[in-house]
Amino acid sequence: MSKDRLEAFSDGVIAIIITVMVLELRTPQGGNPAALRPLAPVFLSYVLSFVNLGIYWNNHHHLLQAVEHVSGGVLWANLHLLFWLSLFPFGTAWMGENNFATWPVAVYGADLLFAAVAYFLLVHTLLALHGPDSTLATALGGDFKGRISIVLYLCAVPLAFVNAWIAGTIYVLVAVIWLIPDPRIERRLAK
Amino acid sequence: MSKDRLEAFSDGVIAIIITVMVLELRTPQGGNPAALRPLAPVFLSYVLSFVNLGIYWNNHHHLLQAVEHVSGGVLWANLHLLFWLSLFPFGTAWMGENNFATWPVAVYGADLLFAAVAYFLLVHTLLALHGPDSTLATALGGDFKGRISIVLYLCAVPLAFVNAWIAGTIYVLVAVIWLIPDPRIERRLAK
Amino acid sequence: MSKDRLEAFSDGVIAIIITVMVLELRTPQGGNPAALRPLAPVFLSYVLSFVNLGIYWNNHHHLLQAVEHVSGGVLWANLHLLFWLSLFPFGTAWMGENNFATWPVAVYGADLLFAAVAYFLLVHTLLALHGPDSTLATALGGDFKGRISIVLYLCAVPLAFVNAWIAGTIYVLVAVIWLIPDPRIERRLAK
Amino acid sequence: MSKDRLEAFSDGVIAIIITVMVLELRTPQGGNPAALRPLAPVFLSYVLSFVNLGIYWNNHHHLLQAVEHVSGGVLWANLHLLFWLSLFPFGTAWMGENNFATWPVAVYGADLLFAAVAYFLLVHTLLALHGPDSTLATALGGDFKGRISIVLYLCAVPLAFVNAWIAGTIYVLVAVIWLIPDPRIERRLAK
Repeated sequence: MSKDRLEAFSDGVIAIIITVMVLELRTPQGGNPAALRPLAPVFLSYVLSFVNLGIYWNNHHHLLQAVEHVSGGVLWANLHLLFWLSLFPFGTAWMGENNFATWPVAVYGADLLFAAVAYFLLVHTLLALHGPDSTLATALGGDFKGRISIVLYLCAVPLAFVNAWIAGTIYVLVAVIWLIPDPRIERRLAK
Repeated sequence: MSKDRLEAFSDGVIAIIITVMVLELRTPQGGNPAALRPLAPVFLSYVLSFVNLGIYWNNHHHLLQAVEHVSGGVLWANLHLLFWLSLFPFGTAWMGENNFATWPVAVYGADLLFAAVAYFLLVHTLLALHGPDSTLATALGGDFKGRISIVLYLCAVPLAFVNAWIAGTIYVLVAVIWLIPDPRIERRLAK
Repeated sequence: MSKDRLEAFSDGVIAIIITVMVLELRTPQGGNPAALRPLAPVFLSYVLSFVNLGIYWNNHHHLLQAVEHVSGGVLWANLHLLFWLSLFPFGTAWMGENNFATWPVAVYGADLLFAAVAYFLLVHTLLALHGPDSTLATALGGDFKGRISIVLYLCAVPLAFVNAWIAGTIYVLVAVIWLIPDPRIERRLAK
Repeated sequence: MSKDRLEAFSDGVIAIIITVMVLELRTPQGGNPAALRPLAPVFLSYVLSFVNLGIYWNNHHHLLQAVEHVSGGVLWANLHLLFWLSLFPFGTAWMGENNFATWPVAVYGADLLFAAVAYFLLVHTLLALHGPDSTLATALGGDFKGRISIVLYLCAVPLAFVNAWIAGTIYVLVAVIWLIPDPRIERRLAK
């Protein structure tokens, strides 16, 4: 089974999620700059989600390049990831419109956590399919970033109830960890 | 006529339908967890439709892999399927916002039924084009799943007027039947 | 310049227009069937636009198959077509929500007319690029359907002010004329 | 790393942005032509943004044709461009609904400026990757249009506070400068 349509469908869904999120930046009533001020947290929330979705698209791109074939299980692992990503517009809007209040920040973090777990499962479904000696397996190595993200999100969600900004800082931290595209896969593929 | 653009267009439409549905999960007013409770049936309804659209995309993917060429009739049979799928966001929202009331559940089931019939017609338009000795024909066999889905939906819609949850259970049952990707086509293609 | 990205972009835009239209089918307030009745004209309007967009996608598909290369002018002629198609959701909603009143029906017809003219211009930009002896030119012949559509829409728009249903009937008539995919191109390509 | 998925993802995002903008053309309440009048500035604003996004898609298309490979940095430079483009629907709606008032026009211009800078950065990330002797470098030459756009937008934003229509005229002027697809790249590729 070829990976082309899986890539095309994932690109489509992620492109739409990223664009649909901007609809939550509702047009302010008046034309004066004060009308923009209440949008500030919604905008900040949008930027964070845009970067996170950019990271997912980027890593998905890198991951699929090392993939040789897919199976029915991979299709479902991928749809599972897209499900959690599809909830980003909801979480982003709720968090932004409530000015980073405790519960919305925790729910947003839970969505980040489930997406990270889904990505982890997708990686491991692909690894099981390609075997331990494949380009994919040697390129991924220990999948440090995938594991550390899940651990950090697991800490962040309960910490949101202590102080929402601690959780927010951890979300940004994980994004920073991922921002650098995975050099292992690029290096392997270059050989 | 090549099948590439048919696949790309269908991927696009299904990707957008899946993402547009999430817009019905309207941002709650307050930031407290109680604000999430009324969203529970809308969310459940969303999950069911996400899984159903995932199944359609998955099976469409499998089906088209065994297809060698398409005709004008196939393009229209495919658009007919996409028409019924495009009504999923409407049915999903109406069912979720009315907490699985009788009429919305029946209308949602009617949409599932029309989509199943449209998929059946698409399969048979493709079979007529490829002939009884094609990879497609031998791979599909008796199309048991396609037939049983239509029968089950035909039972579910009137049963919604007895009890909406009987209908809902049948919708879930059909989804479970389809969840396993068609091993016949995969097996055939592997040869 | 290759035609691949032009096809992909047009597929994307048409797929989104078709799906965005369904957002105008707003979820009714109650769960009883009477709540669906006011949606009837909106639904009818949606079906008409879905079929029209299906026709455009279908003919675009057929047209581009006979095309060998594109130019900067073709890209703009195509964007011009997509502009008028992008106004379909607006026209469809206005016509449906006002129960096929005179002005909305006339404005919808004007959009159909501009789209038909834009398609005509796209065809002729492609013909100028490929020359009179190309597969495209011999396949298209006199472009009877393109010409008759423009003439019929030109009649329909003023007739909307006599009776909106006369205009509506002409819109359906043009759709019926186009519904059969162009056998000339298919026949030529088969040779 | 191949450029195919980068093109597909960018096509998807731009196609969605262009279509989502039309949702801001809200269906008027009544069916009489007077109901359309308040939409005039929103429509004008939509046309300007449609043309600008068409230009970006067109130039992106031309640019990527001369590109041989991409890197992780290119993916992020491209996402950065898409970020500013994704704010077009917001800026377009705010400007249109406030009848081209000072602040909305300035904010719209700032978005145009950031998008132009992002495009400039994308071009230069690609140039750094391909080297000064590449087809891309010789085709682009001094990138006059890219530089002049940034200068003009830098002038337009403060001028919006003198008179919003001066800024608006400059936005149209930059669009006119870009409307002609880059003959340098086309000419180079033809060789």
